[in-house]
Amino acid sequence: MAKHFQRELATIKRMILSLGALVEERVRMAIVAIENRDADMARQIIKLDYEIDEMEVEVEEQCLKVLALHQPVAVDLRFLVAVIKINNELERIGDEAVNIAHRISVLAKRKSLDLFFDYSGMAEKVQRMLKMSLDALVELDETLAFQVLAMDDEVDELKSSAYDRIKSAMSEKSDAIGYLINLLLISRHLERLADHATNIAEEVIYLIEGEIIRHGKYPIPDKLRR
Amino acid sequence: MAKHFQRELATIKRMILSLGALVEERVRMAIVAIENRDADMARQIIKLDYEIDEMEVEVEEQCLKVLALHQPVAVDLRFLVAVIKINNELERIGDEAVNIAHRISVLAKRKSLDLFFDYSGMAEKVQRMLKMSLDALVELDETLAFQVLAMDDEVDELKSSAYDRIKSAMSEKSDAIGYLINLLLISRHLERLADHATNIAEEVIYLIEGEIIRHGKYPIPDKLRR
Repeated sequence: MAKHFQRELATIKRMILSLGALVEERVRMAIVAIENRDADMARQIIKLDYEIDEMEVEVEEQCLKVLALHQPVAVDLRFLVAVIKINNELERIGDEAVNIAHRISVLAKRKSLDLFFDYSGMAEKVQRMLKMSLDALVELDETLAFQVLAMDDEVDELKSSAYDRIKSAMSEKSDAIGYLINLLLISRHLERLADHATNIAEEVIYLIEGEIIRHGKYPIPDKLRR
Repeated sequence: MAKHFQRELATIKRMILSLGALVEERVRMAIVAIENRDADMARQIIKLDYEIDEMEVEVEEQCLKVLALHQPVAVDLRFLVAVIKINNELERIGDEAVNIAHRISVLAKRKSLDLFFDYSGMAEKVQRMLKMSLDALVELDETLAFQVLAMDDEVDELKSSAYDRIKSAMSEKSDAIGYLINLLLISRHLERLADHATNIAEEVIYLIEGEIIRHGKYPIPDKLRR
């Protein structure tokens, strides 16, 4: 029975990591689509989102099944509840990739215009946060999870610079308002991706520490501050 | 033991409803603050958000305690998992109220300007969705929950009208770009509030039907279509 349970847990871990890999791939596509203002790739992201949705449902059903069948306690119970919540975050990351894709279809019509902001730098940071939060889950690596928390503030600052740049471009280019609104929204979707990665990292820390650190009340260790 | 368990479930139900009431109150404040461009009320919303955060942590801890202690199965297990997820949605609704509050501090500086869009109509609908989704949870009323799903499309349409209005205002008023961006973002925060209410309604339906209806694959009954 205990062996059977361990096998089920290993399956769930594999499932959530597959979903994580799929979501990472979709974010990667969204970032390439921003850089190239590639409407075809954007359409692909929208078309394939059902895959993420289906996997999310499967992961949750599997967790409920294992909870009902094996009635785990302590760390195993906490792990399963963390997976249910992380699963939810991953599905929403997929939704943000879709949101970005919708914005790109507008940008693609005016490829001659500038991006007014270094999206690749922001995107690269967000992508690293997502990867690190998933690695933190697999390795149960608390240090890595805390690093993700620290990076979230950096992404917030990048979002503010994007806001300033685009706002001033709007005052000058009244013929490109739709284009610029969509650029602004992309910076906000990227920032939301970072928020979801942060939520995952917080769940991992909670899982390790057994303490709820959400809502910024947990002090970030000095060694992780920059 | 069974009696003790029923008492614990009743406590959790009471806790999630208290959190729901608090979140409803905070959304109400945000809506009044939009209408009056009231920076003081906006500051209150931001200052009091910790109350929602604390209650969210308490609800989750209570659910984990009951799961570990009583190892419920079937409908009780599903109920507790639904509460953990709805709890999360409620906390994020609180965050959206805070997001709106941040936008209002910008609007308050230019009270002489128009709102360019009927925010009260959109806000009233969103508020009703939130109330209905919580009522659906208390009463386990599936019809009510389906009505929330149908209203979400209406809110999406309102968001699009807001976009059109504000976009054209931006082309004309290049001196009010910051103000207009913040108006645009408010319409998006309201739409996100509606999304969270929809997520709650979907959890309630899942709880009743034992089927995952997320991702729009569940047909909405004809009687609920408008």
